[in-house]
Amino acid sequence: MSHNTFGHLFRVTTFGESHGVAIGCVVDGCPPRIPLTAEDIQADLDRRKPGTSRFTTQRREADEVKILSGVMVDDNGVQVTTGTPIALLIENTDQRSKDYSDIKDKFRPGHADFTYEMKYGIRDYRGGGRSSARETASRVAAGAIARKIVPGLDVRGALVQMGPHAIDRSRWDWDQIGQNPFFCPDAEMATFYESYLDGIRKSGSSIGAVLEIVAEGVPAGLGAPIYAKLDADIASALMGINAVKGVEIGDGFGSAALSGEENADEMRMGNDGVPLFLSNHAGGILGGISTGQPVVARFAVKPTSSILTPRLTIDKHGAEADILTKGRHDPCVGIRAVPVGEAMVACVIADHYLRNRAQNG
Amino acid sequence: MSHNTFGHLFRVTTFGESHGVAIGCVVDGCPPRIPLTAEDIQADLDRRKPGTSRFTTQRREADEVKILSGVMVDDNGVQVTTGTPIALLIENTDQRSKDYSDIKDKFRPGHADFTYEMKYGIRDYRGGGRSSARETASRVAAGAIARKIVPGLDVRGALVQMGPHAIDRSRWDWDQIGQNPFFCPDAEMATFYESYLDGIRKSGSSIGAVLEIVAEGVPAGLGAPIYAKLDADIASALMGINAVKGVEIGDGFGSAALSGEENADEMRMGNDGVPLFLSNHAGGILGGISTGQPVVARFAVKPTSSILTPRLTIDKHGAEADILTKGRHDPCVGIRAVPVGEAMVACVIADHYLRNRAQNG
Amino acid sequence: MSHNTFGHLFRVTTFGESHGVAIGCVVDGCPPRIPLTAEDIQADLDRRKPGTSRFTTQRREADEVKILSGVMVDDNGVQVTTGTPIALLIENTDQRSKDYSDIKDKFRPGHADFTYEMKYGIRDYRGGGRSSARETASRVAAGAIARKIVPGLDVRGALVQMGPHAIDRSRWDWDQIGQNPFFCPDAEMATFYESYLDGIRKSGSSIGAVLEIVAEGVPAGLGAPIYAKLDADIASALMGINAVKGVEIGDGFGSAALSGEENADEMRMGNDGVPLFLSNHAGGILGGISTGQPVVARFAVKPTSSILTPRLTIDKHGAEADILTKGRHDPCVGIRAVPVGEAMVACVIADHYLRNRAQNG
Amino acid sequence: MSHNTFGHLFRVTTFGESHGVAIGCVVDGCPPRIPLTAEDIQADLDRRKPGTSRFTTQRREADEVKILSGVMVDDNGVQVTTGTPIALLIENTDQRSKDYSDIKDKFRPGHADFTYEMKYGIRDYRGGGRSSARETASRVAAGAIARKIVPGLDVRGALVQMGPHAIDRSRWDWDQIGQNPFFCPDAEMATFYESYLDGIRKSGSSIGAVLEIVAEGVPAGLGAPIYAKLDADIASALMGINAVKGVEIGDGFGSAALSGEENADEMRMGNDGVPLFLSNHAGGILGGISTGQPVVARFAVKPTSSILTPRLTIDKHGAEADILTKGRHDPCVGIRAVPVGEAMVACVIADHYLRNRAQNG
Repeated sequence: MSHNTFGHLFRVTTFGESHGVAIGCVVDGCPPRIPLTAEDIQADLDRRKPGTSRFTTQRREADEVKILSGVMVDDNGVQVTTGTPIALLIENTDQRSKDYSDIKDKFRPGHADFTYEMKYGIRDYRGGGRSSARETASRVAAGAIARKIVPGLDVRGALVQMGPHAIDRSRWDWDQIGQNPFFCPDAEMATFYESYLDGIRKSGSSIGAVLEIVAEGVPAGLGAPIYAKLDADIASALMGINAVKGVEIGDGFGSAALSGEENADEMRMGNDGVPLFLSNHAGGILGGISTGQPVVARFAVKPTSSILTPRLTIDKHGAEADILTKGRHDPCVGIRAVPVGEAMVACVIADHYLRNRAQNG
Repeated sequence: MSHNTFGHLFRVTTFGESHGVAIGCVVDGCPPRIPLTAEDIQADLDRRKPGTSRFTTQRREADEVKILSGVMVDDNGVQVTTGTPIALLIENTDQRSKDYSDIKDKFRPGHADFTYEMKYGIRDYRGGGRSSARETASRVAAGAIARKIVPGLDVRGALVQMGPHAIDRSRWDWDQIGQNPFFCPDAEMATFYESYLDGIRKSGSSIGAVLEIVAEGVPAGLGAPIYAKLDADIASALMGINAVKGVEIGDGFGSAALSGEENADEMRMGNDGVPLFLSNHAGGILGGISTGQPVVARFAVKPTSSILTPRLTIDKHGAEADILTKGRHDPCVGIRAVPVGEAMVACVIADHYLRNRAQNG
Repeated sequence: MSHNTFGHLFRVTTFGESHGVAIGCVVDGCPPRIPLTAEDIQADLDRRKPGTSRFTTQRREADEVKILSGVMVDDNGVQVTTGTPIALLIENTDQRSKDYSDIKDKFRPGHADFTYEMKYGIRDYRGGGRSSARETASRVAAGAIARKIVPGLDVRGALVQMGPHAIDRSRWDWDQIGQNPFFCPDAEMATFYESYLDGIRKSGSSIGAVLEIVAEGVPAGLGAPIYAKLDADIASALMGINAVKGVEIGDGFGSAALSGEENADEMRMGNDGVPLFLSNHAGGILGGISTGQPVVARFAVKPTSSILTPRLTIDKHGAEADILTKGRHDPCVGIRAVPVGEAMVACVIADHYLRNRAQNG
Repeated sequence: MSHNTFGHLFRVTTFGESHGVAIGCVVDGCPPRIPLTAEDIQADLDRRKPGTSRFTTQRREADEVKILSGVMVDDNGVQVTTGTPIALLIENTDQRSKDYSDIKDKFRPGHADFTYEMKYGIRDYRGGGRSSARETASRVAAGAIARKIVPGLDVRGALVQMGPHAIDRSRWDWDQIGQNPFFCPDAEMATFYESYLDGIRKSGSSIGAVLEIVAEGVPAGLGAPIYAKLDADIASALMGINAVKGVEIGDGFGSAALSGEENADEMRMGNDGVPLFLSNHAGGILGGISTGQPVVARFAVKPTSSILTPRLTIDKHGAEADILTKGRHDPCVGIRAVPVGEAMVACVIADHYLRNRAQNG
């Protein structure tokens, strides 16, 4: 079956296809009396929006969000949530009418064409239909609401590797994130990526990336062992983003090479009487529960499979064929996954924040 | 809140602490009329059982499973499932009474002690309580049932890296898995691991590992986009295993360094008229749905934090202290995670197999 | 928390307030390749629509439904479901701007004003906001899809009692349902109701009703014991409709007065080799599972609390006050609950139909 | 599929058959640090226990509950919950071995025999298997835990009608509940029931009943509109009890006959500054949310279908047959449903209490 809802107490249900009338979502479980305007959501959407640089798809979408329900102006004249479901609508305005006859029946390698056909016996071939990354705009919109639920929460993301080229972490500067089209915190590497990705773009190829999400202000004690652990929910949320093939928390795969002495984060008391960890190999999560340190997650995004080089494939009737994907695509689809990753992590944390309130009253 | 159930149609609820009376689980949603005996389950449990070599904890647990409900002998004299919940009980027999005063109030670095205290305001300090890896026996038991639901499904796991030392994949031989205490498919590397891990064990240290799970016989079309994708559910299931810090599908983090040409698995028609992929970078999953190729997942397990070297910590009253963990522990806890990983992947696949039947009738 | 989704495999999430921009729903889990047009849904909506007789609210709503996603035209030129979420939108066109100062802060007795204020600390006072019966249009729309999932299913509803006046069941004629404004299967009683309800309407009062839903073509074996029994799910679905205070299956409360001999439905084999029940006291459900007989459910709807007689109340500042509710209201809100009840029962049956397919393959 | 879990945050999963090794449940989501002993649970179990009078089944079950997990003795020496799952085990001790050949293949009219066979293709014929009322012992045990979660909550139940004979509400005295074997609050009627039920019992017949549950101390504001309304969840919980055919809240079906003036509960301010309702037709729930008044629910239990008079039936091979049910049965199974109804209502309220904490922090 299809499953288009995530979250347990903070629940998001998305709908819509790449080339349909509209996409959107219903956010259920948001507490009442939280100030919320369309502008709050729009700011996040604009960071994910296509067409903002030559390094993202040239599809032109305003991605303008409308709030259909769940808010009202209170006695103080502030628009706030009412506790009822918040429906958000984003109309598709640039679902360019074009000739799909070339790809209608063929399975594009690396795309979900073959698997959707296997699962559903039918698929919306226009722009990837439901499997298009366009769907993630709804997640970003939901994430904007999630961010408002947890006081003091700050979730930021960055591109830390493009192709085989990782950033230099000693140059990490959050202020750089908004200064280049890659969400890259390393200014030097951003300059390199510019020419590197130009080459890939011009050759009609594509490349993968690794993103990192850092959530600060996560209270200690969030997580729902044994099967909705904070890290398990983050893993699910990030792996569920289009084109993601790996997720790690804290030292991640690197922790396999560590000894017990190296890996365990020692503790002291801080001057403020607050427990202090001397390192954060754990990425802010132990036993599925937040430690109060920053939650650190990374995820790997494969290169988009839409490339100009012909590839071998078959069509739905079993005939062998070649295919190449013309049109508007991201040479490094990982770039725009940064705000999506932030949104997903924010949604998971908001969900667990509410669960914890249930437990602790 | 606590959350001790996983799965949507094939649902597993586990209970029990390391040093309590018993652990176990309730498996709900298993179709009726499937042959099932305690022996079927026991075989898998025995592969995870502690104390089978000097490389795993010396705790002696028979791990004998009893089926309390959900089966009956049918008219043909075969014990089968009835469609009602299958309750499984495993008594704790070696929860050795010992003096816990040294660790009762102190937080062991790298363990879930601090976070359970933050979350619940109370924690069962005896052997890690609910956060003990002992809980995973229940998952292995459930997985044994899951394996019987999907015809032709074969889920196997292997250790592919210990510390910084990866196996040589060209020597991969599944038959070796049962020939060494490491579930290692590379005989040469298994010999190396033996002396390597002996050194670590004798020094009272520990080391991490990477495991790989391969599921063959997964029908094409399994997965529930957008938010219960097959890979997202596997990521959640594996990340939720104790001490896991990273999960990847197919090429995983390696795919970040690939170009679109390298990454996308091309297709041809096989001689048998069945679609054929020319490679499996995707690890058997595209757009969250199985392709029919083997599903390949890897996960990284950090070194156990129970080591003989004293570490800095605090206690629950805020006093600073040193701590070292004596007692029975796994020098490489990743080893015994192999059957657990298999079980979790089997449970996820069984769940999606049932979901697909719902969709397709 | 708020909870605006129902169903396990066939899942409906609704949104929207009485006087907001729009209402609507997202239907998730509908199998693919089912023919579906807006007209299919509109037909059901038109049966629930306000303003069609003098016996329902004079609010004028076109209740025109738009399908935003989840369908496409297949290779045969037929618009069908794709297996992805179906978003439905119904714009509010007659949310007449008026002066709410009289009821903004006062709690209307019998309405949800006080309880929404207690729960959320804020409430949308315009037309009842989210608690308005207007929300049920979304359910009717979802029900129209549900009806298409189960082959041969026919769900019909009827008004069987208005105030203290029950119909004569010996005169039951389904063809009468569409011949009077009450969904009444007893033509004689319908004539009586006309003058009876005119009296109530003119006096500014209101009256309750009992509705009966009959689902034919329900396959034997549907239901998910122990806690999602077919009757338990129907009870929840019907009790969740606005103003409903009671639900019964088969003989319902009448069965309390029966002896075991009278109550148990005896069985014979039909001439067609199909098991035959000699009566249907059970209302088509035994042990929470369908018998194959018609599923029969009744529910009681209280009189709408919007009346012209002043009632004692308080306001949200604790001041005592009188209140009377002017404006457009249903003198017997039970009437329009008939298509809503049908829709809810259809949704429950569709959900269990899909669950059963999961079990039986 | 089968579905043996109920609740959203306070979740109960039950298992076990009438004549298996044991029954029991796993209670997940109970907040930590709540004092809990087996004795607390036993007290409620003893009220439901069979064999305590000649008016209930003569099966002799100690119904002794064991807590397998989820509690520990805290620093103050008090056994408390830890926030981890609480597994409860009740062994079957009197599952008398007997000859089932007479009923093994025949469907007992009014029982779930036919429907279980239709659904699962197999059924445990011994004592009704999973569909036996014995399963409700697990619910009563879970309810004992639920009662401890909501401060000040008091949930009591009573038998208010046996066969066609209702009690006189003007004689309602809660103290009488424990003074007769019927949980009857009307002493005079209890005396009548004694001879009345003796007659039924001796004739090998059975009779239905109506039970009423009253929950006091329910805070205003509990309930999760639109689809997990407090009354909808209670309706589901009560309808899901074995043999229940109807549920009503407050005036229930009686409200159909009321006018808007009669039905709406007017409000004033109490001397204590707390809002006061002048009546409780609503049964403590408006718009799916608690008002703070007592929550009042009634449910109808059909007569047990196990009677000594032969009834017409068929067997699973399609042969027509007669059947009569010898053995140990309740002449009025409704009696022992009183503590079960209490438990279910307590569980629903506890679940919503936790949900509300999530919302309000």
